[in-house]
Amino acid sequence: MEEQEVRGRGKPIRCRAAICRKAGEPLQIEEVEVAPPKAWEVRIKIICTSLCHSDVTIWEMEVPPAIFPRILGHEAVGVVESVGVNVKEVKEGDTVIPSAIFECQDCRDCNSKKSNKCSKFPFTFSSSMPRDGGTRFTDFKGEEVYHFGYISSFSEYTVVDIANVTKIDPSIPPSRACLIGCGISTGVGAAWKTADVKAGSTVAIFGLGAIGFAVAEGARLRGATKIIGVDLNPNKLKIGKKFGFTDFINPSSCGNKPVHEVIAEMTDGGADYCFECVGSASVVHQAFASCRKGWGKTIVVGFDKPDSQLCFNSNEVLLSGKIIMGTMLGDIKPKTDIPLLVKSYLDKELRLDEFVTHEVQFEDINKAFDLLLSGKSIRCVIWMDKQNPPL
Amino acid sequence: MEEQEVRGRGKPIRCRAAICRKAGEPLQIEEVEVAPPKAWEVRIKIICTSLCHSDVTIWEMEVPPAIFPRILGHEAVGVVESVGVNVKEVKEGDTVIPSAIFECQDCRDCNSKKSNKCSKFPFTFSSSMPRDGGTRFTDFKGEEVYHFGYISSFSEYTVVDIANVTKIDPSIPPSRACLIGCGISTGVGAAWKTADVKAGSTVAIFGLGAIGFAVAEGARLRGATKIIGVDLNPNKLKIGKKFGFTDFINPSSCGNKPVHEVIAEMTDGGADYCFECVGSASVVHQAFASCRKGWGKTIVVGFDKPDSQLCFNSNEVLLSGKIIMGTMLGDIKPKTDIPLLVKSYLDKELRLDEFVTHEVQFEDINKAFDLLLSGKSIRCVIWMDKQNPPL
Ligand SMILES: [Zn+2]
Ligand SMILES: [Zn+2]
Ligand SMILES: [Zn+2]
Ligand SMILES: [Zn+2]
Repeated sequence: MEEQEVRGRGKPIRCRAAICRKAGEPLQIEEVEVAPPKAWEVRIKIICTSLCHSDVTIWEMEVPPAIFPRILGHEAVGVVESVGVNVKEVKEGDTVIPSAIFECQDCRDCNSKKSNKCSKFPFTFSSSMPRDGGTRFTDFKGEEVYHFGYISSFSEYTVVDIANVTKIDPSIPPSRACLIGCGISTGVGAAWKTADVKAGSTVAIFGLGAIGFAVAEGARLRGATKIIGVDLNPNKLKIGKKFGFTDFINPSSCGNKPVHEVIAEMTDGGADYCFECVGSASVVHQAFASCRKGWGKTIVVGFDKPDSQLCFNSNEVLLSGKIIMGTMLGDIKPKTDIPLLVKSYLDKELRLDEFVTHEVQFEDINKAFDLLLSGKSIRCVIWMDKQNPPL
Repeated sequence: MEEQEVRGRGKPIRCRAAICRKAGEPLQIEEVEVAPPKAWEVRIKIICTSLCHSDVTIWEMEVPPAIFPRILGHEAVGVVESVGVNVKEVKEGDTVIPSAIFECQDCRDCNSKKSNKCSKFPFTFSSSMPRDGGTRFTDFKGEEVYHFGYISSFSEYTVVDIANVTKIDPSIPPSRACLIGCGISTGVGAAWKTADVKAGSTVAIFGLGAIGFAVAEGARLRGATKIIGVDLNPNKLKIGKKFGFTDFINPSSCGNKPVHEVIAEMTDGGADYCFECVGSASVVHQAFASCRKGWGKTIVVGFDKPDSQLCFNSNEVLLSGKIIMGTMLGDIKPKTDIPLLVKSYLDKELRLDEFVTHEVQFEDINKAFDLLLSGKSIRCVIWMDKQNPPL
């Protein structure tokens, strides 16, 4: 019913993309053809993209939802190249951040302040476009290449549904803007929106990667007086000093004392908020044990294996008064909240510079994987165009 | 250090008590000696007491925390007979409701609006007094008789710590006041304080006993527009019509459709609040599945076996945005909130009359057990003194 005719350039674009052809093998920079945007779609020229742990998780995965060949990448910023029919919200030349979750702005969830789980377009581990289920990439052999997270930013051009696109203030540096697409929104949002961290409270963060650091930054901005980082890797503790942590715990240096007892001693009985940013059921239990009875919140931030179970003693849930909650992109509603995060950075409140530990050119994208896997980087920014930094 | 000297009558009292001497066997009305209150203690003449499911659960239990001989009973109202030294808060003749949880009014939890989990006196399944660990009852052989829930109201007189005692307006009828000691506080508090039910919301209640009905009453008073009762027992559905339910579901009459799908259809995707009042891990899962994505709260109200585990799929916790919480006495702070519940009844807001389906004399206390076990009663009030109703 909808016109498939396209405004703007309206033609396929040939460009470079980093294709994942086999689980765990280096991405291959190849030429792909990117179809013009259909109705409700936007074709974006990616400026830069950063590597998130979820890219690595899906890159390593051999079984579904893994699928090949595929273009990964979901933390990015770009400029609108052209738009399909019905797209009024953005136009050519607008700076945009794509996000893996949708905001149709029309359903019960999108109209509620409490939910970022759009009912019209539920989040799934899909590998194609949300409306017609098709792909917009073909490789040099004319075969289709799958999408990732509705974004696929490891390509010079990509096609994204308008429900996944947020227009932003272009004055934010691209290497900072891209982070807001996933990690920063997840961590800061978990502190601000999911947990609703209050001034003067105590926070424990399990797992110090970009998301754990972003939780710390969110907690610092809310005025938490104690922010405890927990990680087995001493390097992470070192990097973490740049963030708002007041204390660090390396569980391997606690002797026979379990982490939750150390935290209880530091916080008069347990932290008000415990964030699990590892994606491990056993760490969720540590976090739950480390929460203050009476009001402590355990916030599950890290993705675990699809079949992983979180088990709690029934009467402990009942008697302790502790609350268990999860968070998806930090309960951030992209079109509403991403511009606020951008503004907070531009207003010199939200710190993002500290997250970018490395930058590479697109052709060196596999270095970004090495850096993240070895725990050396927090975020490595991948620049698509040689005219941009870090040249 | 504290004076053990006692004001008031100061002498042991001989009176009747219903003693549980063996698991699951009828209680025996015997003469006991009730010691005078020690420092910080209050001796109470019980006016009436009602039978709660927890009394039955512990009565049936053969292994610890079960202990024999013991005086059960924890939903009661009485009059202060005498007080120990240091007790300033109540005096002889005051009408009081004892509660199984403490309010020392001094610790971090008691000073916080968020917690009813006193740190000075943590709730345990104790069988004695909280300060000296002793008992105040001896039987006709001079052997000690254990307490239950720091209350032991199945006795004409009992000794309770001042941290477990709340003075109330004596104008509330005793057969209504006693209910507030446990069931009403738990259910209404779960709706008001734990879940914070909002006007216009949808509520599903799994398990229709006194607590489930009290949740419904709390939700009704908060202006919930849909209150769905779920129970396998058609009698419960019938009794429930007197309460604020708008809908009933009997899971055995749903054909192949699981309860959570029926609820999803009735509530546009799931109830805003799901209360589990059964004490069964599988029902907790039904409740969790029946919650609205994005903001639904699952509130665990029912006690399960000590080793019972609640297991949730990790990514479902993460992706659904549903919150899991437990409640202990409805997060009611006894000394603050019980007087407000009494006032709400006297102001003809909170309905309590509907809960009292049966009344018996103390010597017929075992009938109260039969009525509750057979599902015929919601609350059976047990009157201690023949001069009182139901004569
Ligand atoms: Zn929507
Ligand atoms: Zn990510
Ligand atoms: Zn206290
Ligand atoms: Zn009870």
